[in-house]
Amino acid sequence: MNIQTYISQILDELGETVGHVCDSSAEKLVDAIMDAQMVFVAGAGRSGLAMKSFAMRLMHIGFETYVVGETVTPSITNKDVLLIGSGSGSTSSLVTSASKAEAIGATICLLTIDENSPIGKLADVVLTIPAPTPKIDRDLGFRSVQPMGALFEQSLLLTLDAIILLLMEKTGKTPESMFNRHANLE
Amino acid sequence: MNIQTYISQILDELGETVGHVCDSSAEKLVDAIMDAQMVFVAGAGRSGLAMKSFAMRLMHIGFETYVVGETVTPSITNKDVLLIGSGSGSTSSLVTSASKAEAIGATICLLTIDENSPIGKLADVVLTIPAPTPKIDRDLGFRSVQPMGALFEQSLLLTLDAIILLLMEKTGKTPESMFNRHANLE
Amino acid sequence: MNIQTYISQILDELGETVGHVCDSSAEKLVDAIMDAQMVFVAGAGRSGLAMKSFAMRLMHIGFETYVVGETVTPSITNKDVLLIGSGSGSTSSLVTSASKAEAIGATICLLTIDENSPIGKLADVVLTIPAPTPKIDRDLGFRSVQPMGALFEQSLLLTLDAIILLLMEKTGKTPESMFNRHANLE
Amino acid sequence: MNIQTYISQILDELGETVGHVCDSSAEKLVDAIMDAQMVFVAGAGRSGLAMKSFAMRLMHIGFETYVVGETVTPSITNKDVLLIGSGSGSTSSLVTSASKAEAIGATICLLTIDENSPIGKLADVVLTIPAPTPKIDRDLGFRSVQPMGALFEQSLLLTLDAIILLLMEKTGKTPESMFNRHANLE
Repeated sequence: MNIQTYISQILDELGETVGHVCDSSAEKLVDAIMDAQMVFVAGAGRSGLAMKSFAMRLMHIGFETYVVGETVTPSITNKDVLLIGSGSGSTSSLVTSASKAEAIGATICLLTIDENSPIGKLADVVLTIPAPTPKIDRDLGFRSVQPMGALFEQSLLLTLDAIILLLMEKTGKTPESMFNRHANLE
Repeated sequence: MNIQTYISQILDELGETVGHVCDSSAEKLVDAIMDAQMVFVAGAGRSGLAMKSFAMRLMHIGFETYVVGETVTPSITNKDVLLIGSGSGSTSSLVTSASKAEAIGATICLLTIDENSPIGKLADVVLTIPAPTPKIDRDLGFRSVQPMGALFEQSLLLTLDAIILLLMEKTGKTPESMFNRHANLE
Repeated sequence: MNIQTYISQILDELGETVGHVCDSSAEKLVDAIMDAQMVFVAGAGRSGLAMKSFAMRLMHIGFETYVVGETVTPSITNKDVLLIGSGSGSTSSLVTSASKAEAIGATICLLTIDENSPIGKLADVVLTIPAPTPKIDRDLGFRSVQPMGALFEQSLLLTLDAIILLLMEKTGKTPESMFNRHANLE
Repeated sequence: MNIQTYISQILDELGETVGHVCDSSAEKLVDAIMDAQMVFVAGAGRSGLAMKSFAMRLMHIGFETYVVGETVTPSITNKDVLLIGSGSGSTSSLVTSASKAEAIGATICLLTIDENSPIGKLADVVLTIPAPTPKIDRDLGFRSVQPMGALFEQSLLLTLDAIILLLMEKTGKTPESMFNRHANLE
């Protein structure tokens, strides 16, 4: 096989997953971010890296944004939102964070394959990304050629980047104004 | 606008960029990884996060892999490969790493928009991802609706995940054998 | 007050805590590291940063070392050791990691103020650092002028660096041989 | 040798280094932080981890603080301060950051062994920590038993924690008010 064969398969798979993300759930996620005082993001592994990519763009737009586990992340309050990206919706450390956020009264949003997962049940907003994975036993009509949660993780990044475009619209921010906030010491 | 409108645009843009990644450059990148004793990855900002996603999968396959700047990353030698993801190919800290790697005699691979960039000139293998960005003044036939290097960063992740599929083929690894290496303490 | 006044107080406090670290517990910790196939370290907040400082030195000596939560960290097995630094011994995410490690059969070592904590009860080796903190209600004979767990975190770093000296002795490594492993791309 | 022998040596060495930190340089560093709009910290390796420990406490006090290279770090301006911890004062990536900060007009503070280093020459405030290391050829009257920059890194952490006590005094913050800002999702 050559790379273009695999790239075609990946693009086809992405169309099947992100093409089914629900418009109204995305709107609710956008509203939760717009209404929050501070935005916290969390995720494990490659999903966590997609959440960090999102956090960086939120910062560029001007939202006060933090990544759970990074150095300067303060305490969350009931005026804030916690956004979790988790394919299974059941990663232990993220269930812990979601439970703590709920006890404090923060708004919880989840991007996941499984809306009936433990975090799904705690969340105020759930955005479902219907990516099949070996770990999640649901009939989504096709199997991915990719290992583990790769298709979810890619779909998560693209979905979050589409949400950035919605947020730019809402806030009137342009790529130029965002670039002014871009890190300039590296 | 709703999220599906933006998702369609992003998928269209991705087809225009990753659809033009060169098969033979990808093969050279695969060979460089297969031949290396250790694999080091580096990148800044969101490109750096895509490189980390790749590093995690390389580790799952069984390659001895390190991220420049993380805690347990040892010294590079002339038997190793340094993989850099950089849209501009000119980020200062990455130019520094590339220069140091070259002095040591390590193999350097670059994934970039601009093969004529400072790091492009130092690299043994360059894989070009033709994503238009405001910062890079080249006529690629279209403009992205997305801010800054978003299209490059997405294309980088997908290209690297296609390279993972090529490497799984070469090494005979399956998703199941890779899952056995997956972090299990979170 | 000037900085030297505070520095004197900090040094006095450190003498009161690290001066009471138990020789035989340290020996057990050293043995657990020497016997392990891979070494995993974990910690939250500033204690987590001290654990990372330790992990970097373990890598310099030549131990295959990983930080829980970093990119290239593989799965732990029953041949490995998990070292946790936690003042309270009860941080949720660390209790989770310790429980998972125990189920897998890995050796667990804890550096803590409170050996009777949840992680303390799971651990095979506990090294107690008797630092008073506002959160831990024990009579240690004095109060620290420093906020939160500062004295524990400082003591943790110094104790771990003393363990590095013990491990250098055991392995015959010199500062020069360790420097050869030092990251060289930054 | 046992751990208490090494701990005694480390404490003796620390007295010889942090005991010579200059009161008036520390005051200048405190003033630079108090006057800044945002505080950026940077460092490589174990010195970088000490700088992160400091950044966390600055956040607890209430300073808007960022770590160079972390996800949510925005652009620096001429109203901000960049604090660098570097034993040699010559780490390439940090020289780059210092040069960029200088061009922008930000205030630069350096904690270092070598005030005549490249970053030392760019810095507005230099706080010298006179720790001997094999890499730095200066007669400081004694040799450390510890490998590489260990003594500098330990001294850096303790000096920064003493600066926290000075800043608590200046701002009137108590451990209790700081604890309210402590991360609460882990």
